[in-house]
Amino acid sequence: MSGRDPHTPPAEVATTRRKRHGLVIVNTGEGKGKTTAALGVIFRAWGRDFRIRMFQFIKHTGATFGEHRAAMRLDIPIEALGDGFTWLSKDMDRTQALAVEQWGRCKEAILEGEEDIIVLDEFTYAMHYGWVPVDDVVDTLGQRPARMHVIITGRYAPQELIDCADLVTEMRMIKHPYREQGIRAQQGIEF
Amino acid sequence: MSGRDPHTPPAEVATTRRKRHGLVIVNTGEGKGKTTAALGVIFRAWGRDFRIRMFQFIKHTGATFGEHRAAMRLDIPIEALGDGFTWLSKDMDRTQALAVEQWGRCKEAILEGEEDIIVLDEFTYAMHYGWVPVDDVVDTLGQRPARMHVIITGRYAPQELIDCADLVTEMRMIKHPYREQGIRAQQGIEF
Repeated sequence: MSGRDPHTPPAEVATTRRKRHGLVIVNTGEGKGKTTAALGVIFRAWGRDFRIRMFQFIKHTGATFGEHRAAMRLDIPIEALGDGFTWLSKDMDRTQALAVEQWGRCKEAILEGEEDIIVLDEFTYAMHYGWVPVDDVVDTLGQRPARMHVIITGRYAPQELIDCADLVTEMRMIKHPYREQGIRAQQGIEF
Repeated sequence: MSGRDPHTPPAEVATTRRKRHGLVIVNTGEGKGKTTAALGVIFRAWGRDFRIRMFQFIKHTGATFGEHRAAMRLDIPIEALGDGFTWLSKDMDRTQALAVEQWGRCKEAILEGEEDIIVLDEFTYAMHYGWVPVDDVVDTLGQRPARMHVIITGRYAPQELIDCADLVTEMRMIKHPYREQGIRAQQGIEF
């Protein structure tokens, strides 16, 4: 057992209390774990009583996946606005309109500045497909309160977004059970 | 708004209810998000009332980072046993002994089979440095209940572990605020 007071963080992190520097964090790439890592940050941040708000693009409005169930119990707002867009979607105008509407809500929340962390889940697609101008996103991020963290997830993160971000991680798939063994997505793990 | 009953999952995932296939998941690589994505799975799984247990290697016993605070409130056991090992550690015998002891506890939990998900956080180092034989780990994973998910995080995942895993993701650092801007780890985000 360590002799250190369990309520004191290790010395190397204690000094960070002095100042919070809001980060723009991007989780991108083809692999798993982009949204999941954002949920992990929410878990940590909730443990520190941060004010958190998550906006989901693409996912069906009213989805009740594991994260929605957990968030509801913990009173963390997760707002999904989407129609479950896939490569097979037929009504792309509707998909696009929902994404644009959702970005409007995000922008308002970012500029209002009430939260410590705002997550824009699967938002990169809206920029990638040209539905939301990257310039508008970068401008809005630049106007946020200095203490606010913003996390953006999804494949195909545009270069302008990467340029303005503080922390960018690419999730790379090394091995995947769907492809190699035909195993379906597992409840509680991936949704 | 979607016309779909919000309590029904989309058709593409509803069928997965039929059977749970326990996965061995490895989050590795030099980038951020390995432990964080494991915490995200815990968040989801907690939302689905899964029985969860997390073992942390390396981290100081008694650490009270964001994840520990959240887990304590949610009654999710996170058991850390370590001395905060870094490249500068002086007492490597002690670091090693703690890792070996912690693996013993994990092995017991895996074989007892009481949990739906067991997370072995930063466990790869114990294998990488030869403190715990990979063969023993692979054998133990092979004996776990078929429905149990096991998540292992950390850099330098040994090839034998990757070979036996179902889902392996490499987190790659594209941009990092420490290195590029001298920003320290942020509370609620990284710990």
